[in-house]
Amino acid sequence: MSTPDWFGRLAERAQAGPSELSAVLALAGSGGDLVDFSGGFPDPELFDTRLLAELAAKAIETRPEVALQYASNRGLPGLREALRADFARTQSRTPADDELIVTSGGVDAMTLISKAMLDPGDGVLVEAPSYLGAFSVFRSHEGVCVSMRNDEHGLIPASLAEAAADARARGIEPKFAYVIPDFQNPSGLLLSAERRREIVDTARAEGLLVLEDVAYRDLAFDGSTLPSIYELGPDVTVQVGTFSKTFSPGTRLGWAAGPAQVIDAMAQAKTNTDQCAGALGQCMLESLMREGHYARALPHLQRAYGTRAQALMAALDEHVGSMATWTRPAGGFFTWLDVPGVDTKLLAPVAIDAGVAFVPGAPFFADPGAHSQLRLSFSRTPTGRMGEGARRLAAAIGFQRG
Amino acid sequence: MSTPDWFGRLAERAQAGPSELSAVLALAGSGGDLVDFSGGFPDPELFDTRLLAELAAKAIETRPEVALQYASNRGLPGLREALRADFARTQSRTPADDELIVTSGGVDAMTLISKAMLDPGDGVLVEAPSYLGAFSVFRSHEGVCVSMRNDEHGLIPASLAEAAADARARGIEPKFAYVIPDFQNPSGLLLSAERRREIVDTARAEGLLVLEDVAYRDLAFDGSTLPSIYELGPDVTVQVGTFSKTFSPGTRLGWAAGPAQVIDAMAQAKTNTDQCAGALGQCMLESLMREGHYARALPHLQRAYGTRAQALMAALDEHVGSMATWTRPAGGFFTWLDVPGVDTKLLAPVAIDAGVAFVPGAPFFADPGAHSQLRLSFSRTPTGRMGEGARRLAAAIGFQRG
Repeated sequence: MSTPDWFGRLAERAQAGPSELSAVLALAGSGGDLVDFSGGFPDPELFDTRLLAELAAKAIETRPEVALQYASNRGLPGLREALRADFARTQSRTPADDELIVTSGGVDAMTLISKAMLDPGDGVLVEAPSYLGAFSVFRSHEGVCVSMRNDEHGLIPASLAEAAADARARGIEPKFAYVIPDFQNPSGLLLSAERRREIVDTARAEGLLVLEDVAYRDLAFDGSTLPSIYELGPDVTVQVGTFSKTFSPGTRLGWAAGPAQVIDAMAQAKTNTDQCAGALGQCMLESLMREGHYARALPHLQRAYGTRAQALMAALDEHVGSMATWTRPAGGFFTWLDVPGVDTKLLAPVAIDAGVAFVPGAPFFADPGAHSQLRLSFSRTPTGRMGEGARRLAAAIGFQRG
Repeated sequence: MSTPDWFGRLAERAQAGPSELSAVLALAGSGGDLVDFSGGFPDPELFDTRLLAELAAKAIETRPEVALQYASNRGLPGLREALRADFARTQSRTPADDELIVTSGGVDAMTLISKAMLDPGDGVLVEAPSYLGAFSVFRSHEGVCVSMRNDEHGLIPASLAEAAADARARGIEPKFAYVIPDFQNPSGLLLSAERRREIVDTARAEGLLVLEDVAYRDLAFDGSTLPSIYELGPDVTVQVGTFSKTFSPGTRLGWAAGPAQVIDAMAQAKTNTDQCAGALGQCMLESLMREGHYARALPHLQRAYGTRAQALMAALDEHVGSMATWTRPAGGFFTWLDVPGVDTKLLAPVAIDAGVAFVPGAPFFADPGAHSQLRLSFSRTPTGRMGEGARRLAAAIGFQRG
């Protein structure tokens, strides 16, 4: 019995072929001698594995009826309480109980808000560049990504109203603007407090929701923070965060905080997605937060990633020099290079041959086109390998330029 | 600053209000003196918590670079291998490597196939009754549920072609038929091998995919199995399963096996949903399977749930008697009652007042209407509480009938 051709029976959205993100995730497991600057992965060696092992075992042995059971679609009450207490650490606004949901990571949070907000053909205003995985989520819910404008300081607030008008002129109803203010993915830039305020003012004037992604907010190398967009405009903001960078991606945990009506719709959507976030991970994170370990571990992570950023900057200065320009991040996992005259999509396979991996710039833009930019992630690369990575990258650029 | 009214900005699908499933999940945490026959929850007391605690700690301490990291969107290679080996335990067909994906539970698997197969307005043929959570997933992807027909032996195979024709006559393209052959949710019925074969024949003739949900397949009280629909027709079947009933819901793990083209589209969809299933749980399950614990623990679970089913049957015989009829399951978590002349949606609040909870029948049917049926789950109720639960149920029925 030969298998029928099911491809033609797939949904239209599924016939587009593999996403850029899945190629990146596939690279993660390739290993070998490759210097891998590709994925936005944390380094598990920086986690306190003995403590986490203890917390996992304790959760299972002492609270099996919770840790080994379904959780509420909004998350375990204990973790929600701990999360609300943790907001006070870096933000002046704490969500009320009905303004908070525990998600299965950041991408799940974006899935839930897409299910909650997007009718087919609705618009999402996005930075140019921005996180490619988010585009993919919005589009998989029949959303249309409409580009705002970014400059060397990050998102230009005035472009929010321009993009909204542009969308409406094209018959697209803009539902929310997706913004990553802290150590942005992919640019590494920190958006000024001034621009954050302007974004909130514009969102209020336009009746637009801001989807604020704070994935890297806790990872300023000096531990500092600026006011979040959520703090400045809790009436017009849904903040989504992930614990994949500071706790572990292995338990799929994140959160969303925002107006109760939106959070409520996200909670309903969760029952149709994966029902609830995993209770075992929720129990572990609850202990980690309640016992103070979570906040205490952050300076260690901040210093470690700061050291790696510094090492990569030095390596780029030495090997790449004037062949490219790049951002000098004060936090997070990424630097963003511009290699004038080079289409980085063509550079990528040349670089792999030379033994170095990165993500080319094009997929970080909602509009198609060739791009001379690329993203390097320094989060998983030992400082001692930065030089070799930069040297290989320079060789690939030289080869590509002929 | 007052929060704007965001409700009117929500997607159309999100303005429908809370799902029946979330009400059921909410009840789960209510506690008190309630005899709770509502949720399809396993009993964590039946899990080997000491072993699971050990496996969790071991995974974190010995394989942090795997357990505390992102996984591939198809699942960890080691778990996939263990899963394929486990297929041989009860099925004669083992999926090839590209025919298998690890999911974040059963509902996630249904989300992924919906994303892979359903364009807005496409049809899904469903049993009447069937699992309400699945309806909710299909509808949240703009799918239309079209009812097949069930009798006292389960799904009537001839109704598959009838429902497909009915859908096409209404301009609905049927994409797949959703079938739960083993100890069905909610009926508790086991579909005969004969009917399974007829379903495969019809699916082939109609060019339809069968989505086979085997959530309770491993939980026959006597450990027996019938050939799965996937075994009988791997060319036309995607089998989805969950480890929430036999391992733990606390780590959100399931799988899907089927034609490579469909699984591939599901894997792409996963990067837009939650990226990957949690690696910590995957490591635990891999050890559990490789070391033989998984298969060895099943007889214990089967006997325990069998004992509870028997206790509930005896309690219903004694207290409910001729007020209702019900199925006598040979596995799984559920029995399905018919209470002639009673609308069980109206009975439910009366029963809660009497101290007993169940899920009324109506939401298990895709077509609206009053129903005299209800589902009782015996999976979490101590045998010593069955009598009290049945007595309260009988009192509520008596009160409702006036």
